[in-house]
Amino acid sequence: MADLTPGTREALLRVGTSTLTGVLYRRGLRSVFMHDVSPIRPETPRMAGLAFTMRFIPAREDKDAPGAPGRGQVQRTAMEECPPGHVLVIDARGDARAASAGDVYAGRLKARGCAGIVTDGGFRDTEGVFKTGLPAYHRRASSPPSPVAHHPADLNLPIGCGGVAVYPGDVVVGDCDGVVVIPPNIVDAVAEEALAGTLYDEFAEQEVARGRSLVGLFPVAGEEAKRDFEAWKRARSGGR
Amino acid sequence: MADLTPGTREALLRVGTSTLTGVLYRRGLRSVFMHDVSPIRPETPRMAGLAFTMRFIPAREDKDAPGAPGRGQVQRTAMEECPPGHVLVIDARGDARAASAGDVYAGRLKARGCAGIVTDGGFRDTEGVFKTGLPAYHRRASSPPSPVAHHPADLNLPIGCGGVAVYPGDVVVGDCDGVVVIPPNIVDAVAEEALAGTLYDEFAEQEVARGRSLVGLFPVAGEEAKRDFEAWKRARSGGR
Amino acid sequence: MADLTPGTREALLRVGTSTLTGVLYRRGLRSVFMHDVSPIRPETPRMAGLAFTMRFIPAREDKDAPGAPGRGQVQRTAMEECPPGHVLVIDARGDARAASAGDVYAGRLKARGCAGIVTDGGFRDTEGVFKTGLPAYHRRASSPPSPVAHHPADLNLPIGCGGVAVYPGDVVVGDCDGVVVIPPNIVDAVAEEALAGTLYDEFAEQEVARGRSLVGLFPVAGEEAKRDFEAWKRARSGGR
Amino acid sequence: MADLTPGTREALLRVGTSTLTGVLYRRGLRSVFMHDVSPIRPETPRMAGLAFTMRFIPAREDKDAPGAPGRGQVQRTAMEECPPGHVLVIDARGDARAASAGDVYAGRLKARGCAGIVTDGGFRDTEGVFKTGLPAYHRRASSPPSPVAHHPADLNLPIGCGGVAVYPGDVVVGDCDGVVVIPPNIVDAVAEEALAGTLYDEFAEQEVARGRSLVGLFPVAGEEAKRDFEAWKRARSGGR
Amino acid sequence: MADLTPGTREALLRVGTSTLTGVLYRRGLRSVFMHDVSPIRPETPRMAGLAFTMRFIPAREDKDAPGAPGRGQVQRTAMEECPPGHVLVIDARGDARAASAGDVYAGRLKARGCAGIVTDGGFRDTEGVFKTGLPAYHRRASSPPSPVAHHPADLNLPIGCGGVAVYPGDVVVGDCDGVVVIPPNIVDAVAEEALAGTLYDEFAEQEVARGRSLVGLFPVAGEEAKRDFEAWKRARSGGR
Amino acid sequence: MADLTPGTREALLRVGTSTLTGVLYRRGLRSVFMHDVSPIRPETPRMAGLAFTMRFIPAREDKDAPGAPGRGQVQRTAMEECPPGHVLVIDARGDARAASAGDVYAGRLKARGCAGIVTDGGFRDTEGVFKTGLPAYHRRASSPPSPVAHHPADLNLPIGCGGVAVYPGDVVVGDCDGVVVIPPNIVDAVAEEALAGTLYDEFAEQEVARGRSLVGLFPVAGEEAKRDFEAWKRARSGGR
Repeated sequence: MADLTPGTREALLRVGTSTLTGVLYRRGLRSVFMHDVSPIRPETPRMAGLAFTMRFIPAREDKDAPGAPGRGQVQRTAMEECPPGHVLVIDARGDARAASAGDVYAGRLKARGCAGIVTDGGFRDTEGVFKTGLPAYHRRASSPPSPVAHHPADLNLPIGCGGVAVYPGDVVVGDCDGVVVIPPNIVDAVAEEALAGTLYDEFAEQEVARGRSLVGLFPVAGEEAKRDFEAWKRARSGGR
Repeated sequence: MADLTPGTREALLRVGTSTLTGVLYRRGLRSVFMHDVSPIRPETPRMAGLAFTMRFIPAREDKDAPGAPGRGQVQRTAMEECPPGHVLVIDARGDARAASAGDVYAGRLKARGCAGIVTDGGFRDTEGVFKTGLPAYHRRASSPPSPVAHHPADLNLPIGCGGVAVYPGDVVVGDCDGVVVIPPNIVDAVAEEALAGTLYDEFAEQEVARGRSLVGLFPVAGEEAKRDFEAWKRARSGGR
Repeated sequence: MADLTPGTREALLRVGTSTLTGVLYRRGLRSVFMHDVSPIRPETPRMAGLAFTMRFIPAREDKDAPGAPGRGQVQRTAMEECPPGHVLVIDARGDARAASAGDVYAGRLKARGCAGIVTDGGFRDTEGVFKTGLPAYHRRASSPPSPVAHHPADLNLPIGCGGVAVYPGDVVVGDCDGVVVIPPNIVDAVAEEALAGTLYDEFAEQEVARGRSLVGLFPVAGEEAKRDFEAWKRARSGGR
Repeated sequence: MADLTPGTREALLRVGTSTLTGVLYRRGLRSVFMHDVSPIRPETPRMAGLAFTMRFIPAREDKDAPGAPGRGQVQRTAMEECPPGHVLVIDARGDARAASAGDVYAGRLKARGCAGIVTDGGFRDTEGVFKTGLPAYHRRASSPPSPVAHHPADLNLPIGCGGVAVYPGDVVVGDCDGVVVIPPNIVDAVAEEALAGTLYDEFAEQEVARGRSLVGLFPVAGEEAKRDFEAWKRARSGGR
Repeated sequence: MADLTPGTREALLRVGTSTLTGVLYRRGLRSVFMHDVSPIRPETPRMAGLAFTMRFIPAREDKDAPGAPGRGQVQRTAMEECPPGHVLVIDARGDARAASAGDVYAGRLKARGCAGIVTDGGFRDTEGVFKTGLPAYHRRASSPPSPVAHHPADLNLPIGCGGVAVYPGDVVVGDCDGVVVIPPNIVDAVAEEALAGTLYDEFAEQEVARGRSLVGLFPVAGEEAKRDFEAWKRARSGGR
Repeated sequence: MADLTPGTREALLRVGTSTLTGVLYRRGLRSVFMHDVSPIRPETPRMAGLAFTMRFIPAREDKDAPGAPGRGQVQRTAMEECPPGHVLVIDARGDARAASAGDVYAGRLKARGCAGIVTDGGFRDTEGVFKTGLPAYHRRASSPPSPVAHHPADLNLPIGCGGVAVYPGDVVVGDCDGVVVIPPNIVDAVAEEALAGTLYDEFAEQEVARGRSLVGLFPVAGEEAKRDFEAWKRARSGGR
C-alpha cells in the first residue's frame, strides 16, 4: 500500500478511536488498541499515518556504555528515514526507565513531514516535544538518556507496542484517549463505516441530551430512530 | 435511606475527600477511598450521591461474541434505571482493556438527573463524556467497546470498586483527588463534622501562610489556637 | 556542603532534568531519576534544593491507632526543621494508599522558605497543596490520612524515593518530567555542563526546525555544526 | 445440566489442560484459562467437576469487624451446599492479602464428596488443606483470616476467577499447570476430541524421541504420519 | 524484652502462622503477615525468634561501584552481631533484582546460633543457603551480588518487610505459608491462645473428616461441640 | 565463535549463577541475570550453551486466527534449526497468557542434541516438558496454545528475555536460581575465574560452618585466610 488516500486520512482524523475500535470489533479485531499509551499532553493534536517501526531491546553494559561506537546510528536513521506522512512507532517493551526519544528527534520528524511518534516507553523533554507540534504518544515522561535502559536494535520489522502487534505499513490513529492500529487492507472501508457511525452518534447524543430514552436508539437503532436520523440528516444539510 | 438531605449534599460537595477520609478514619473506617480512580479531567465537577451499582465479569467468547443476544441489556437498563441524584458505580475488576461506558450512556444519566458515574476500569470517548457535564471518575481512558473484556452481569448488588466495598445506597463523594465511600447511616454526622473541620483547616492554612508554627496549631489545636479560631470565625462573620 | 551557590541554583532551575540526566550519565551515574514521581499539576514550578529526608515504614495497628501518642511528632518536626532552600524528600515505599502530607504541611514549608516537597507516595488535598505555591512531586493523589498506611520513622537518614537513593544534602531538581538527584560534590560542574548543553540543544532545535539533517548535528556535533554553533552564539549575543 | 457423565469425567481427568485449551481454541474459545492460579502443591491430584461459585467483595470496617454478626454464614453455607462432584470456585479479586479458605473448610468439602476448590486469592494452612486430599488451586499461600481483606457476598452467581468468567455449572478442570473452564453444553464433545488429541500427542512424542522431524508430524499431521499413527494404534492395542 | 521463653518459643514453632494471624486479628492486629515472602524450599524448617533488622536503600553508582570502600561492612556486621536466637530481617524494598544475602552469610548466622533470615528481596545460591539448615524466607531467588541493586544503610532500626512494619525485638514466626510479626509485649498470651486454638482445630479437622457438619462446630464452637471437645481432650490424654 | 570449549562448558555447568553474576559484576556487567525466569521444576538439570533466539510479537486476529496459513512455520523451524549444544531463547515479552512451547517441541530439541530452552513467558504441559530431560526455564506454566497471545516473528535476531539483552551466540547458563547471559568473547576467562571463586567459596563455607568469623575471610580474603586456603587446597588434593 502506497499511502493513505486524502479522504481516508481526513476521515481518520475526524472520527475517534472509540468509533474505530467499535468498527474493528464488529470485524473480529479486538487486539488493536494500545494499553497505557496516551498523548503527552491533553491538547496533543490527533494523528493518522502509516507505521514505520523501531525496536529497542534491553541495554547491556558491554554494548551500551557511554561512547560505544555506532550506538545512536539506528535511532538517527529512524528520524531521517521515516517517510513523510508516516508515524514512527517504537517498541520499548513498556519500559519507561529511560527515554525513547526527545525534542530534537521529534523536531526532525516534524520538519520532514512525518505524522507522529508513538512509544510504549517514555519521551524526555516533553515540553520541547510538545512545542514541535508533532503528535506524540507515550506511557509517561522519562528523562534519562535511552542507553540507560534501551539498545536500538533495528528498523521496520513487525513489533509489539502497548501490547498490540504493529506491522510496518499498518495504519496508526491517535486521539486524546490513545492509539489504535488498523490493518491497511481494510482501512478505507473502516474509515467510511466509522464516519457514518460518528454521524449517528452525534444524532444520538443530541437526542439523549433532549431527554430521549436509549430504548430503540442506542446502541442499536430501531425503526423510529432510523427515520428520525434520516430526517435529522436532511435538516442538517439544509433540507436538501 | 431515601436520599441525601439538601444540607448534607451541599456539605459533601463543599468539603474535600481528604477531610472526609480524615473524619471516617477517626470513626475506625480506613478502607473507604478508591485506589487508582481519578476524575477524567482536572476540571471535572465535584460529585455526591447514593450508589447504584453495576457489575462486570470477564467476557468469554461463547457469551460475548459480536451480536450475542441481550448482551447490552444490563448496561442499558443501568442507564435508564439509576435513580436521579444517584451515582452509577461500576465494578470493572480494575480492568481498563475495554470501556466501561461512553458518552451516550453518560449523556443519558445526565439527562435523567443522575449525579455521576464511577468505574475502576475506563471510559471511552472521554471528550464526549466530559462534554455531557456528568462527573465521571475512572482509572484511565479505554476506547475498545466493553465486550472486548467485560460481560455486564447484574445491577445493584454489593460490589468492589477501586479496592473498596460499595453497597447500593452507600454515599459516594468525588473531588479532584478521587472518590470516597460513606456508610449512609452516618453520613449526616460525617458531613457536619467535615464541614467544621474544613473551617478550621481554612483558618490553619491562613495562619500558616502568615508564618505561624504548626506547634499547637495543626493537626491538633492547642488552647491558644482554639481562642484564635473563635476570634477568626467572629471576624469572618462580620463581628456578629 | 553549606548550600547551593546562587549561580548553580539558577542554572539548575533553567536546564531540564533531561539535560541533567544526560550529563550525569556521561559521568557514570544512571540510577538518579525517580520513577513514577511527577509534579502534582502540569503548571507546578521547577524546583532545586538540597535534600532533607523523612522515612515512613508501614503502619501497624498497635503503633498507629487513632490517637496513638506522639505519632504525628516526626512529621511536624520535618515541616518545622527542613531548612530554608531545602527540599523535603519522603520515602513512602511507593505506597499511595494514604497521604504523605497535605496542604497545611506544604504551606508551612513554603512559609519557612523551603524549596519543595517530594514523595513516592501521594499528597492529599492537591488543590490546596498547589495553591501554596510550593513545588510538589508525587506518584498520585491520595486522600486518606497518613496513619492508614504509614508510620513516620525518622528524619535525615539516607532513604530510597522513586527507586533512587537520596542522601541528606543531595541536590534534588524537578521539572514537568520528574525529579533527578545529583551528588552535591559534583553539582557545580554538572550545572555548568548542563547549561552549555542546553544552549547547544536550543541551537540544534532551531536548525532542525529549519530542516537541517541530524547527521553531523545531533546528538554529536560535527565540525561544521560546531562552527555554526559559534556563529549562532555570536549572533545571539548581538555580534559581540 | 445434571452432572458430568462418568466417561467425560474420566476423559477430563486423563487429558491435560494444554490439550483442552487447544481444543477450545479451535472452537473460538480463548478466554478460558485462569491466570496466576496453580495447585497448592506439585503433587496435587487432578480435578474435574461442575462449578459452584462464591463471591468475595472487599472487607470494610463497618461490615467486617471481628464479631460482626452473620459474617461467616455465606462461607459456611458454601461448604455445606456445594454439591458432591462439584468444584467450589471463589472470586477473590486476585487478592491474596487474606485467606479465601483453610483446612477445615476444605476438609468439609472433601468429606461431602466435592471435587475441588479454586480461588484467585490464597489458602491458609496449605499443609492442612493438602492433607485433606481435596484438589486445591490458588494464587499463593495467605495466612490472615478472610475478614482482613474479604467480605463473602453471595453464592452461585456468575463470577470472575483468575481473569476468566465462571458461570455456575461450567466445567472446571485442573492439572499441574493450572485450571481451565469449559462451557457445559460442549464438554462431551470437547472431552472426546481431547482424548483423541492426547493419543496423537503420545504418538508424536515417541516419534520425536526416536529422532523423527516435526515436518509432516506436528503440530499438523501429514499423510505419512496419519498412516503411521494408525499402525501405532493397532500395534498398541495388540494388533487387533 | 530479653528473649523468648522456652515455652513460648516451643508453642510458636508448633502452631501455624494461620492460627497466629487469627489470634492477632481478634486483638485488632491485621497488618502483621508479610506479603510475597515464602520459604526458599517447601521443606524449610519452621522459624521463631526476635527480630534484628538490616535496611537496604537503592544502590547508586557513586556509592556502590565495585570496590567502593567499606561497602560490605554493614552486611558483615549484621551477620556477626545478630544475636543467637534472633532472626535477621532485611528491608529490601521488595526488590529481587539483586541478592539480599547468600550461603556464606547464612552459614555464619547458623554457626552463631541465629534462628533465621528473612528478606522481601531474594537470596542467591539458594541451594547453599538451604544446606546450611538456617530457616530462610524471601520473595524469589536472585543471583546478582547485592550492590547491583542495594546499598546496606543501617542496622536495627524499624523497617518495612513484605509490607509489614518490623521493629527490632519484634517476634518473627515462619512456616510453609509465610512469615508473621508479633509485638513482643503480647507474645506469651498470643502463643498460649494459639496453642489452645490449634488443639481445637485438630479436633474440628477430625470431626469434619468423619462427616460432621460445620454448623455449631466451626469457626465458632456451639455447646455440643464444646462438650465433645472436652471429651476428646480427655480421651486423648488417656482419660486422665 | 564456533562453540563452547569442553572445559568451559564443564566449568559453567559446575559453578552457580551466583558466582557467575559476581564475576561479571566485577567486570562491569550488571544487566545479565533474567528476572522472573526459573526452572520448570526444582530438579531441572543445569544448562549451558550458546543462544539461538526466537521472537514473539503480540497476536492479532487478522494474522493469528486458527488455521492462518504458515503461522506455525517459524516455531517449527526454530525446533529444527537450533544447533546442537545451543539453547533456544524466546522473547515472549514476559507474557505468560499463552504458551511459548510445549512437550513435543522440547522433545525435538532434546532429540537434536540442543542444550536447553528458555522463555520469559510460559511452557504448556510442563510435566511432558520435564520428562524430555531438556533443561527448561520460564516464568510460569501456561496451557493455552501460543496463538492466543503470541505471533512468532523471526529467528536469531537480538532479543530481550527476562529484561536482559540476548544476542545470538551469547552464552546462556541456568541453575536452580535462574538464568545468566555471558558475552561469548569473555566466557573462557569468566568460567575460569568462576571456577576459582567456587573453590574459595567452598573453603569459606566449611570454615564458617566450623565457627570462623567472616572478618578477614569473606567476602574479601585476608592474608591469613589466603594461607589457610592454600593449605586447604593442598590437603584436599592429597598433599601433592
